[in-house]
Amino acid sequence: MAKFEAGKYLELFRRELLEHVIPFWLEHSLDREMGGYFTCLERDGRVYDTTKYMWLQSRQVWMLSRLYNTLEKNDRWLEAARLGCEFIKKYGRDSSGRVYFSLTREGRPLFIQRKVFAECFYIMALDEYSRAVEDKQIKQEAVELFGKFLEWSDNPVLLGRPVLEGQKPASSLALAMSALWIADQLGEGGSEEPYRPLIEKSVREILLHRIPEKKIVLENVAPDGTLLDSPEGRLMNPGHAIEAGWFVLEEARKSGDEEIKKQALQMIEWSFEKGWDTRHGGIFYFLDAEGFPPMQLEWFMKLWWPHCEAIYAFLSAYRETGEKRFADYFGQVVDYAFSRFSDPGFGEWYGYLDRQGRPTHTLKGGPYKGCFHVPRFLLLSIGMLEKMV
Amino acid sequence: MAKFEAGKYLELFRRELLEHVIPFWLEHSLDREMGGYFTCLERDGRVYDTTKYMWLQSRQVWMLSRLYNTLEKNDRWLEAARLGCEFIKKYGRDSSGRVYFSLTREGRPLFIQRKVFAECFYIMALDEYSRAVEDKQIKQEAVELFGKFLEWSDNPVLLGRPVLEGQKPASSLALAMSALWIADQLGEGGSEEPYRPLIEKSVREILLHRIPEKKIVLENVAPDGTLLDSPEGRLMNPGHAIEAGWFVLEEARKSGDEEIKKQALQMIEWSFEKGWDTRHGGIFYFLDAEGFPPMQLEWFMKLWWPHCEAIYAFLSAYRETGEKRFADYFGQVVDYAFSRFSDPGFGEWYGYLDRQGRPTHTLKGGPYKGCFHVPRFLLLSIGMLEKMV
Repeated sequence: MAKFEAGKYLELFRRELLEHVIPFWLEHSLDREMGGYFTCLERDGRVYDTTKYMWLQSRQVWMLSRLYNTLEKNDRWLEAARLGCEFIKKYGRDSSGRVYFSLTREGRPLFIQRKVFAECFYIMALDEYSRAVEDKQIKQEAVELFGKFLEWSDNPVLLGRPVLEGQKPASSLALAMSALWIADQLGEGGSEEPYRPLIEKSVREILLHRIPEKKIVLENVAPDGTLLDSPEGRLMNPGHAIEAGWFVLEEARKSGDEEIKKQALQMIEWSFEKGWDTRHGGIFYFLDAEGFPPMQLEWFMKLWWPHCEAIYAFLSAYRETGEKRFADYFGQVVDYAFSRFSDPGFGEWYGYLDRQGRPTHTLKGGPYKGCFHVPRFLLLSIGMLEKMV
Repeated sequence: MAKFEAGKYLELFRRELLEHVIPFWLEHSLDREMGGYFTCLERDGRVYDTTKYMWLQSRQVWMLSRLYNTLEKNDRWLEAARLGCEFIKKYGRDSSGRVYFSLTREGRPLFIQRKVFAECFYIMALDEYSRAVEDKQIKQEAVELFGKFLEWSDNPVLLGRPVLEGQKPASSLALAMSALWIADQLGEGGSEEPYRPLIEKSVREILLHRIPEKKIVLENVAPDGTLLDSPEGRLMNPGHAIEAGWFVLEEARKSGDEEIKKQALQMIEWSFEKGWDTRHGGIFYFLDAEGFPPMQLEWFMKLWWPHCEAIYAFLSAYRETGEKRFADYFGQVVDYAFSRFSDPGFGEWYGYLDRQGRPTHTLKGGPYKGCFHVPRFLLLSIGMLEKMV
């Protein structure tokens, strides 16, 4: 067995992050005139739409602040984070406090979703930025909005989504993950205690999505973890389950709970085994647990972010266990992703490949792809590889 | 030039409709126990989801009633139409009169959209069925709901969709098409007069979506027909523009307006020229008019329905003009569609192919595919071919 070459990957990831990814966003996304970021960027960085999508405004603020807080006190990063944070604080919320989904270039509201994910990323942004600038008032806004987030996510009527009598109660992996992520973020670095119960509850809810008899993780289950008999109830989103897996693994590492650690590792491994396309390589976007055709037209496509999540998840699993197969999986996904998604000539990664692995879209950023998944997995992996070298 | 073989196509289309398509739905979709139709059907007709999607319940009622009213007084068709019509009349609307998007198998409400398309298909269903059973009360329900439809489609706030200040007013091809389609349906067979002004207004609005300088048809334009500078404003949906084209062509045929006829033919031809994939064949689902990456992940896929629309549109254009190129386009799309979508062994058509023309989904029906586009184009084409033979 070849030794795991942590140093080789560390160098690869540092170069990718600092030479090919962050420069792309700093060069092309900053809107110096109106504030905030352009995120709809073509392969070479040309702006093809000036809409300001709040998920991505917030994620970029979080990412740049995180880089500043953890990798290097680089003033260019902080200043770019400020450009976005001031924009979202000024234009991002409506009079009831809800966060818009999209704004015009100038910051005028365009669309609001009946979901709480825009709020999730907004809270993350404010919290991480508040640490970079040591501003307690911004932190306070984040904490207060999290209270609303929990209220709203428990009661969709407050978001304008009618509850109809045929609907079955369900647990959504996305919602449980979001709650865990925010609670972990807000509690990081000292004030974790008040968030402990919510973190533990979210971890329990996430683990309900494991179906051990079938060795799968489902996106939606009944609140008691039993199966929902519908396409939503059979839906697997392997990238998302892998992401949830490494999140729970971090919590298990902190708490030292061996059973939770084992279950987190299963989430990662099962989802990868089911999700990997043995024919053409890459991780499918969606699958139906019973093998029926997934409802999503794009189920067979290979998206950048599940690969980002899988790389960090397997690195984390390998470091935790030392088991060779996790290192092998890590190498397998790194090879696939760096040879197909990465675009060193222009920077950043392609987002969307067909089943065979060819780009279907030349864009580097769009309404759902921005300065987030690629730099996040690189930053996290660099931190871990540094400990392993 | 080979003579156009109307007789050959008439035979092909009749066999497809009567032996491969309608039998599939009659055999697999009727829910004798709870009423209504199963539309989520696998390749061989197995039900993989019992959700009753209202678009498809209504479309199937319309289709079966239309077959009964225009092709043959077949009692099996009428009886199957009744099964659906009684179900949607009993369960399809909420207390405010809006039509749900989806129901459980038993008819309990699951979801309601902030759009009026469920209403559109419901009106169509009731009107066509009312003719089959000569029931004026059902017709009256359709007429009354159309009044609401017009009110709601003019004011999205009534649908629960907030109007935000950054939004630009826009004309949607889908909405103008729906209004034209319903007005045409309700006015068919005698009572056309009250619908004339709306038909003419809808035709004018549809034709605003033509951009002659670029020889394209756009899905969304400003209310005065000028360009909207955004991905939505650059969006082309060639199948949809072709469908709108043959609709307008029928209106021009009735009114005898030569200028409108010319513009309708341009809509069809331009959209096909831009939408045909010269590399792998088939009509793309979405395109960006300026060549930027379309926002839709599935833009490159080949869906069944644009091909259905194109076949009938070119047949209609050829009959109207006698111009050979329309007959050639017709043959080109028939060849592509019958060799890839049609599945004579099990019946009905595949719905979704990858860019290369291979099925990505084995299903014959889903939340957006039911007993509608394939039998509709076959029925319409048969009617036209009969006149040509």
